[in-house]
Amino acid sequence: MAGARGLFIPGPTNIPERVRRAMDVPMEDQRAPDLPDFTLPLFADLKRIFKSEEGRVFLFPSSGTGGWEAAIANTLSPGDTVLAARFGQFSHLWIDLCQRHGLEVEIVDCDWGEGVPVERYADILAADRGHKIKAVLACHNETATGVTSDIAGVRAALNETRHPALLFVDGVSSIASIDFRMDEWGVDVAVCGSQKGFMLPAGLAILCVSQKALAAAKDAKLHRCYFDFADMIRTNNDGFFPYTPPLQLFRGLRAAVDLLLEEGLENVFARHHRLAEGVRRAVAAWNLKLCAKEKRWQSDTVSAILLPEGFDSNALIRHAYRRYGLSLGLGLARLNGKVFRIGHLGDLNELMVLSALGGAELALRDMGVPIKAGSGVGAAVDHFHQTGTTLAVAAE
Amino acid sequence: MAGARGLFIPGPTNIPERVRRAMDVPMEDQRAPDLPDFTLPLFADLKRIFKSEEGRVFLFPSSGTGGWEAAIANTLSPGDTVLAARFGQFSHLWIDLCQRHGLEVEIVDCDWGEGVPVERYADILAADRGHKIKAVLACHNETATGVTSDIAGVRAALNETRHPALLFVDGVSSIASIDFRMDEWGVDVAVCGSQKGFMLPAGLAILCVSQKALAAAKDAKLHRCYFDFADMIRTNNDGFFPYTPPLQLFRGLRAAVDLLLEEGLENVFARHHRLAEGVRRAVAAWNLKLCAKEKRWQSDTVSAILLPEGFDSNALIRHAYRRYGLSLGLGLARLNGKVFRIGHLGDLNELMVLSALGGAELALRDMGVPIKAGSGVGAAVDHFHQTGTTLAVAAE
Amino acid sequence: MAGARGLFIPGPTNIPERVRRAMDVPMEDQRAPDLPDFTLPLFADLKRIFKSEEGRVFLFPSSGTGGWEAAIANTLSPGDTVLAARFGQFSHLWIDLCQRHGLEVEIVDCDWGEGVPVERYADILAADRGHKIKAVLACHNETATGVTSDIAGVRAALNETRHPALLFVDGVSSIASIDFRMDEWGVDVAVCGSQKGFMLPAGLAILCVSQKALAAAKDAKLHRCYFDFADMIRTNNDGFFPYTPPLQLFRGLRAAVDLLLEEGLENVFARHHRLAEGVRRAVAAWNLKLCAKEKRWQSDTVSAILLPEGFDSNALIRHAYRRYGLSLGLGLARLNGKVFRIGHLGDLNELMVLSALGGAELALRDMGVPIKAGSGVGAAVDHFHQTGTTLAVAAE
Amino acid sequence: MAGARGLFIPGPTNIPERVRRAMDVPMEDQRAPDLPDFTLPLFADLKRIFKSEEGRVFLFPSSGTGGWEAAIANTLSPGDTVLAARFGQFSHLWIDLCQRHGLEVEIVDCDWGEGVPVERYADILAADRGHKIKAVLACHNETATGVTSDIAGVRAALNETRHPALLFVDGVSSIASIDFRMDEWGVDVAVCGSQKGFMLPAGLAILCVSQKALAAAKDAKLHRCYFDFADMIRTNNDGFFPYTPPLQLFRGLRAAVDLLLEEGLENVFARHHRLAEGVRRAVAAWNLKLCAKEKRWQSDTVSAILLPEGFDSNALIRHAYRRYGLSLGLGLARLNGKVFRIGHLGDLNELMVLSALGGAELALRDMGVPIKAGSGVGAAVDHFHQTGTTLAVAAE
Repeated sequence: MAGARGLFIPGPTNIPERVRRAMDVPMEDQRAPDLPDFTLPLFADLKRIFKSEEGRVFLFPSSGTGGWEAAIANTLSPGDTVLAARFGQFSHLWIDLCQRHGLEVEIVDCDWGEGVPVERYADILAADRGHKIKAVLACHNETATGVTSDIAGVRAALNETRHPALLFVDGVSSIASIDFRMDEWGVDVAVCGSQKGFMLPAGLAILCVSQKALAAAKDAKLHRCYFDFADMIRTNNDGFFPYTPPLQLFRGLRAAVDLLLEEGLENVFARHHRLAEGVRRAVAAWNLKLCAKEKRWQSDTVSAILLPEGFDSNALIRHAYRRYGLSLGLGLARLNGKVFRIGHLGDLNELMVLSALGGAELALRDMGVPIKAGSGVGAAVDHFHQTGTTLAVAAE
Repeated sequence: MAGARGLFIPGPTNIPERVRRAMDVPMEDQRAPDLPDFTLPLFADLKRIFKSEEGRVFLFPSSGTGGWEAAIANTLSPGDTVLAARFGQFSHLWIDLCQRHGLEVEIVDCDWGEGVPVERYADILAADRGHKIKAVLACHNETATGVTSDIAGVRAALNETRHPALLFVDGVSSIASIDFRMDEWGVDVAVCGSQKGFMLPAGLAILCVSQKALAAAKDAKLHRCYFDFADMIRTNNDGFFPYTPPLQLFRGLRAAVDLLLEEGLENVFARHHRLAEGVRRAVAAWNLKLCAKEKRWQSDTVSAILLPEGFDSNALIRHAYRRYGLSLGLGLARLNGKVFRIGHLGDLNELMVLSALGGAELALRDMGVPIKAGSGVGAAVDHFHQTGTTLAVAAE
Repeated sequence: MAGARGLFIPGPTNIPERVRRAMDVPMEDQRAPDLPDFTLPLFADLKRIFKSEEGRVFLFPSSGTGGWEAAIANTLSPGDTVLAARFGQFSHLWIDLCQRHGLEVEIVDCDWGEGVPVERYADILAADRGHKIKAVLACHNETATGVTSDIAGVRAALNETRHPALLFVDGVSSIASIDFRMDEWGVDVAVCGSQKGFMLPAGLAILCVSQKALAAAKDAKLHRCYFDFADMIRTNNDGFFPYTPPLQLFRGLRAAVDLLLEEGLENVFARHHRLAEGVRRAVAAWNLKLCAKEKRWQSDTVSAILLPEGFDSNALIRHAYRRYGLSLGLGLARLNGKVFRIGHLGDLNELMVLSALGGAELALRDMGVPIKAGSGVGAAVDHFHQTGTTLAVAAE
Repeated sequence: MAGARGLFIPGPTNIPERVRRAMDVPMEDQRAPDLPDFTLPLFADLKRIFKSEEGRVFLFPSSGTGGWEAAIANTLSPGDTVLAARFGQFSHLWIDLCQRHGLEVEIVDCDWGEGVPVERYADILAADRGHKIKAVLACHNETATGVTSDIAGVRAALNETRHPALLFVDGVSSIASIDFRMDEWGVDVAVCGSQKGFMLPAGLAILCVSQKALAAAKDAKLHRCYFDFADMIRTNNDGFFPYTPPLQLFRGLRAAVDLLLEEGLENVFARHHRLAEGVRRAVAAWNLKLCAKEKRWQSDTVSAILLPEGFDSNALIRHAYRRYGLSLGLGLARLNGKVFRIGHLGDLNELMVLSALGGAELALRDMGVPIKAGSGVGAAVDHFHQTGTTLAVAAE
């Protein structure tokens, strides 16, 4: 197929040229005497992305799922209880992982399209006088539904009830794209992956862990070795790793972190918000609805868009891919066939969003969905025109 | 600046990933015993792009301008007369080059926006009973104005007058994008460059030369060495080169030719036409005018679009570049400040065109040009929807 | 530092250009409808590398250590007994991992420099009439000492005693470089990583698992989720993955498998043997000794070379790296400071080996180790000259 | 063929990774408003490589041969006389180019293996009282024979005779590798190419031109357009180009110039000298002879090595290439079959030289040339050991 493909799934995201080049290097010596000159500052700068001074960053060669596993395996023991809300495929999967590791999960089921029910969390925590709940799980951005939750609110609920449970946050599709504040929000384990806001291929779970969670590791009885914090700490302290690290990904991560810090995290967040709002204006102009049920929950990294009754989103997505090289996100689990998702995170700008919207309009028209050609793009153009640019121009 | 830039100038054009990877190789041995296994089939396949069985292909490390120079230096002598029409910056520059090499140029000046005046050529050739005119120059696609000329018509004019002049065609921005027929049209030297339809960086002049032109080289008295056909022929026959060849570009050229032949030349031309028509529909929806004065002259590789009085196209182009990373083509020479150009050639598809149009709309709105946001993109979407796709899906 | 660095550690190994280019691609859609056209044949061809028709291949985003964990977590239960020999750092670490997962390990300690003690294994298995031993672990190639063990012998010991234990083999630094026969040797789980014979960056554990081991998974009680075979099987069957896969590594793996199959596995093994023998001839010419205590244990992928008393191998390795850009392998654990290792596996040829040997000679001379300059290289040159080449010339 | 190939021809040379990555970029806008921010400092830094403050640098998309043509076409008129010595294939070809442009060449023929005959030049210039000689040509480093000439001596000869002729130097295989001093030596046109000391693919002629030569352009009557200095000056002054420039090569050139300046030119020259001397020690240990007839003429960028009577260097080179992936330089013209050349310039270090020498020993042994395996490498190792390193370690 001629021309560049358009990748607008909510991860893995487009790799910036500079990151791609940084990874395209000959193999290196994993025990080179000068490797720590590279790795130690990288760890330090990663903490800035998490907005953490207290925490410690871990890099596991794995997907984000491995990060979920690392979070619990290092801090909990079989039979421990955790509190978690389920309102989409990814919040569901973390719960499933906990259960398969022998944890008791107190599940709060919500409508898909809602976020973490902060009030219900507060009620449950208040009722848990015996502190049976050892950890509270919260999915910061539910990628399946395009919903962002209020993590500060969860922290407030814990604080108000003086509950000592650890707070674990799935920030896979939020961190580095949407404001996230490790220390301020008292997050104990924040789990991220390389393939979303970090703009890299999948292959790295990136965690930030509080001192409280590290202390909890001492009594945690879940088996662990590959994902063991202690093995990492022992070698990371000198800038090395307990097993062969994925050095190309590290080189790419260095470049990605440089890009983020050069643009400035707040500028990155503002850019995501502005571009996301362009997409939402287009959805409105098409007379389609978002899966996110309230404005406060609309995600700045992914929009899940409901098709009208009678249209199959899988067919739309297949058509867009095969005919126009446009990748949109599938509807997952119960949303399958009903929504298509536009990922608008990572290395993104106005031109790319307009291309995604234009391509979506074309595919929607081809499939007979009653939208007016140009309406969505026009709404986004108007929005971008009116709001000016907030792009920091990084010295490429 | 975050995200991918949008390059929509009429050359150099976007490099396909496969071509880019093909060039990203360690340096090779320019005299390796197996180099001819690579170069000889490449020459053979290049002839297919020119639609020539009779001709001979030359690859000079130079820009297209060097190709113009090679064309005349190998075939003409100081004081020879050539016939040429001038209707844009590039047709002008070839004339200038001829004059600086001591040739007499019979110049036919036309309005910028018109193509080769076939009838006037016919009249002049008919009047030239003494055959003082040794060569006829024709710019197949005037990149400055977005005008495609009728080369078959020029050949007909030569045939009707039984004029023996050589026919030289500047196909820099047409060949490999717009139908070009070396043998059928009796072209004697076709000049192309690597950086347009061949989707490569600049650096190669790609010529196809007829046996008649090669024979003319024997008596041609213009000095030449770097651009000498004879030196090339002597070494090319064995698959080698008279001086160090740009091997990375050759590797890229191989990949580009493969892409063109896999898609099929006629499909490539149809794709260019369909995408170009999408751009023209958008221009019409914006109520703007093309520089090309008649429909028959509208180029399928570049559209030069006139801004309304009072607007400065340079300011528009600067703004689009600086704020949105969108590169549009400048107006050249007398068109400077008056037109902006959208290059729609090479490795291009619907998504990319929609991105260019969306970005242009945004920049036009920012500059206060009275267009309706979404109108152009909508017209293109409608056109693409109605015409289906003619893309051949190459096995990437 | 000018010039190319020389990487001669026993992994991660040099990445072939073709593999490197295959990985240098824009991000792809992990749920693209045509992804299975790529992944399903890849799984099929990977089985050929393991010489398995019966087994099933798994690709986990992790290092080889994760592969060890996957092997036991999917097949065993807490308290199960496994038999394992320890004769180097990597055989030690797998034992450690088992213990940390609550397994009982019957450890057979051997001298470092020896391989799996097949006779002692046979005695122990014969004595285990109650079949308490659920799995037998064997490190095919101990990377720390340069020792290759007799896996067929271990299988024979199991067969002779009709012992039903599973046979798990660490083939991280053997598979794809040294002959390995999954089905013929009755291996139940073979663990490999991407960064040795597969010539890729670290980041993939590559496992082949027998039907017997897959059946054992049904009753295995060790917790697992990230490394769960069942989740993989469910999605792999359709060509997809349970979590975001590292697509760039998969593209590289495809290219690496193509290279291996084009050269032919037996040619790959013969090449490794011939090059390894060149290194061993050099070591002998230097009057130095290998860590491997007997010829039958000498590894074709890595040589651990003992320095004379009074010399510090760490200093040698640091000097070679800093001054000449030459990476040699450290001595690990009890061998630290005593040996340096030359990795001779993966994408390697005579020129590269001669460069490693020449560089080692230079560094050894600089450090005052009494060797004759040129002696080692000369011995290798003589060996290569006498044995001719067995390189299959792949059509690059 | 497995493993990395070894490229030890005297150009094109190995591309440093950093340069290669710098070139692997998407296409750029050749008229971008910020392009001058990139090009103007590049021109300035290139002058530092030529050691020129007075001169002006030109970048023509062409090979070095085009640079020769640019030198004369811009400064001389048909019938002008130039003085030139011929002592190898490249000094011969420049003479040929002059003749084909209608110049009279006073040729001084020397034995191949000698350099510019400074005394004879002095005699001829002294005898040319009428200043018929308009330009003196000197090949700084004759790539065919591995001979470096005394350019300061040629300048002295001009100065002593107060001869006003322009001094043109072919520095294609010397500049950026061997000390060259544009201003101090009063060079009027220095011609270089991208594919030797600049460590890039072929495709750029890089010239430095004195004010005296620029002034001469005003009266020069040779036809020129593609290679015209004036067109370049007009556009280069603003940071742009008269025709589409090869932007990828420019990006690579920027990286290469950075590497050279970071290492320090004098360190670069010292590195070349030390590595070259290692090669010469090896040649002596093999009991073979260099083509360069005297020590003062031995080139630090290429060694042409004579085979004993009865051996065919073409067969040796073919064998080394086909069997070991080792590229050595052919003997050219009258040296064909008699010499093989080792290029030791550009991105080179000890490991690479040892690899070239080891590979050459292996190929020589295979061909039956009576050398002792290891002797050459050993001599080079001893030399490198004794002279320590002069490598500047650049911050890669």
